[in-house]
Parts: sequence; C-alpha cells; structure tokens
Amino acid sequence: MISKPHTKYIQSLQQKKFRDEYGCFVAEGPKLVSELLAGGRFTCREIIALPGWIEANPALIALPGSVTVTDVQEHELEKISGLSTPNEVLAVFEKRKQDASIDPRHSITLVLDTIQDPGNMGTIIRIADWFGVTNIVCATGSADIYNPKVVQATMGSLGRVLVLYTDIVSWLRQQPDIRSFAATLDGKPVGTIGKLSEAILVIGNETHGIRNEVLAHTRERITIPRIGEAESLNAAVATGIILSHMV
Amino acid sequence: MISKPHTKYIQSLQQKKFRDEYGCFVAEGPKLVSELLAGGRFTCREIIALPGWIEANPALIALPGSVTVTDVQEHELEKISGLSTPNEVLAVFEKRKQDASIDPRHSITLVLDTIQDPGNMGTIIRIADWFGVTNIVCATGSADIYNPKVVQATMGSLGRVLVLYTDIVSWLRQQPDIRSFAATLDGKPVGTIGKLSEAILVIGNETHGIRNEVLAHTRERITIPRIGEAESLNAAVATGIILSHMV
Repeated sequence: MISKPHTKYIQSLQQKKFRDEYGCFVAEGPKLVSELLAGGRFTCREIIALPGWIEANPALIALPGSVTVTDVQEHELEKISGLSTPNEVLAVFEKRKQDASIDPRHSITLVLDTIQDPGNMGTIIRIADWFGVTNIVCATGSADIYNPKVVQATMGSLGRVLVLYTDIVSWLRQQPDIRSFAATLDGKPVGTIGKLSEAILVIGNETHGIRNEVLAHTRERITIPRIGEAESLNAAVATGIILSHMV
Repeated sequence: MISKPHTKYIQSLQQKKFRDEYGCFVAEGPKLVSELLAGGRFTCREIIALPGWIEANPALIALPGSVTVTDVQEHELEKISGLSTPNEVLAVFEKRKQDASIDPRHSITLVLDTIQDPGNMGTIIRIADWFGVTNIVCATGSADIYNPKVVQATMGSLGRVLVLYTDIVSWLRQQPDIRSFAATLDGKPVGTIGKLSEAILVIGNETHGIRNEVLAHTRERITIPRIGEAESLNAAVATGIILSHMV
C-alpha cells in the first residue's frame, strides 16, 4: 500500500523543480533498477514494487543504509509510474552532485551545445558509454539527465558517465591546449581525423546546431560526408558516427 | 470548414488498417508537406490547412490533377492532427505500390529484420537518405513506413528511398552473389571492412537482434567495437555508424 502523499511525492519527481528540491530522481523497470542498484554510483532512497519483484530480488533489497521498500498493487504502480506500461518496480535514487571535476586531459570529452530532446540526451549518454567516453559537458539549458525520459533512454549508462552542466563557452576557454572539434555541415570529413586519445567533440542543438560563440572556441570542424539528400542527421546518430571514427 | 465524416476519415488514417483500405497516408507541417509536394514521388490527394498557409503557398497548391484544398481553423486542425502541436497544414498523399523492383546490384541495400519502433524506422530512412542508400528491404511485420510517426521522423526522406516489405529470408536467398553483412555483437570491426559499392547490410530488431534463419543467409558479421560498458546501441545509431564506414 502506498499513501496519498507518498503517491504525490513520487509523481512530483517527474518535474525538474521537484527533483531539484528533493535531490532525487526516479528509475523504472527491473533491468534499469537492478543495473543502477548494482552500479553503486547512485544511492537508493526507496523501492516501490509489485510483491512478485520483491520476492524475486532479496539480494538487491538487502542494501546498505536505510532503503524503504514498499509493495504495491498494479493499479498503484500505474498511478506513480511515468511509463505508458509500468514495469514491476520503481526506485528513487539520489541525484549526484555536479561532476565539476571533469578533466578533459588524456580522454575524449563530449560537449553538448544544448541538446533539448530527452530521448536524444539519453541516447547520447548510452552512445558515450558504448565508446568508453565518460566526460560529458552540457550547456546550461540542456535536457536534464534526471528527466525520467533521459533516465529510461540511457538504459543504465547514466551510472557510468560524468556529467557537468555549465557555461560551455567559459569551459572551452579553459582548455586551450586540447584539440577541439565542432560537428558541422562544412568541416573536414570525419574519416580523415584518425583515432584520438585526447579530444573535445562539440555536438550542436537539434535545430540550431552549434552557437557561433561556441564555434569560436573550437579549433577544427568535422563533418559526416553526405552522399544523398537528407537535410540533416539526428544529433545522437551524428554523435555515434563521429565517435566511431574517433575512438 | 471540415465536415464530421471528413474529420473521421482523416483521423482514421492514423491506423494502418484504414491507410491500407484507402491507400493513403498523412503528412503534417509546412516543411514536410512542401518537401513531399515538391519531390513529386507521391501523388497528393488533398490539403487541409489554415488560411494563412494557403495564402502563402499559391504555387504549391496549383498542383496537377484534382487536389482538394480545405481551409480550417486551428481547433479543427487540432482535431484531425496526429501531432501534439498541430502545424498549419496536413496533407493526404497516396501510398506508393510496393517497390518490388529493388535491385541490390551495384548499390548498398539495407535489410531491416523487423524494426518495430516507428521513430527508429523513420530515423533509419533519414540516415539511409543521408548516405545515398535508396534500397530498403523490410521484414514483414516491421513498422509501417506510412505510420504518421515514421512519416514525420523521415523529414522528407521518404520520397527518396525505395521500400519493399517481404520475407527477407527468401529475398536474401535470391541474392547469392552479393556480399552481405549482418550487424551483430561478435563480428569483424566495422572499420576493417572498407568502402563498398555493392553490399547488403542487415540490421536486427531493437530487442531480439537478427533472427538465426536470417543470419544463416548472410556471409559476414560486422560489429561496432565496444570500448565502454553500454549493453547495446540503438538500431538507428548502429545503422548510421556502419553506413558511415561502408559508403
């Protein structure tokens, strides 16, 4: 059983305002929840699940610290879930502090100039994790990584990347010695760059691309050569293609 | 003004059953509609738009044949639109007959083993168009390219690709002389394949990958090397990465 105020609290975490206020976010579904629990990167505050899930996962629930476990019926889970098809378990985790310590030396760092769509943001995090890129710097105003749609789309990769929201122009200015690339429509073909062990890759907004003041702080432009006629590539697809040539 | 039966008819085109019955599909928004009108690949049956759009596009409306133009108010457009934010114009186009003539010789052909998600299907079509790949063969049961979500996600590329829905096992069996690649987790690194002017690339379902009987009819396996820990890449992202190395 879940109380009315408890239901309201969980529902409120769908909104950034309340995620910021409570310092928490929601993850749903057996696979994602168990990955985040096992990853140990996020502290779990509470688990709300169907009795079947609770019975099947005694080890996962035996967590250090004080994790509340609430068993609910399907109609209750439906009420608190952000998914169109609720899936056995919902967990509340503590947001991490900003990863201000991101160090771009000796690694590849992804800089996102205001990715707006939560699905794209989640997919980009998953792509970064695939390619072993753990540094992600987001322009202030980018989609919130704790947005439930981002969390679900990352499929567990959220626990394996560092994310910093900041003024990316200032941030780029602080990295004068690192080779930086802007993904644009008029740069050098991505296949000519070669494999790199240290670089900054800037990906632009879905509609507006990279802002001029950001472009001014990158050294080189790269592009994915177009052979056909499509006007653009999805930002996440472009990120995947460039990283596959770069790492 | 739009009549009640007319409204119902347009709404019904959100469903495959009625798209098949009437042989029509819907596209929305000024950009997509004008691209499809200009492309000339699809015959337009009718246009339903706000008066402002109609006034601003006299040339687009002066179409050959008998295209009905209906002007509507915003609340009427909202009723017939499949978008969360309706956008000035909705057009009904005739579906093309199956592109049974797909010839895999001297080109790259994409074979989709049952892509389920309309967003992924649309993004894959847009990626194919970017890389100049016009042949797409879909396993029976894949997402319908005339699904409004696919149509919107293709962003106009729909008019520049050939699509065939068929039993892909039989289809692959008919192409014994063409080098075929299956995108799997255990193949040769994609970077080692080199550029190709003739090949078949098979991409699997979002959850289940490529079926064994389909794998049995491909010659080689390729993979996108994983450096980090993400369990998988989105099917559309994987398609983009492999094509970027292949074409």
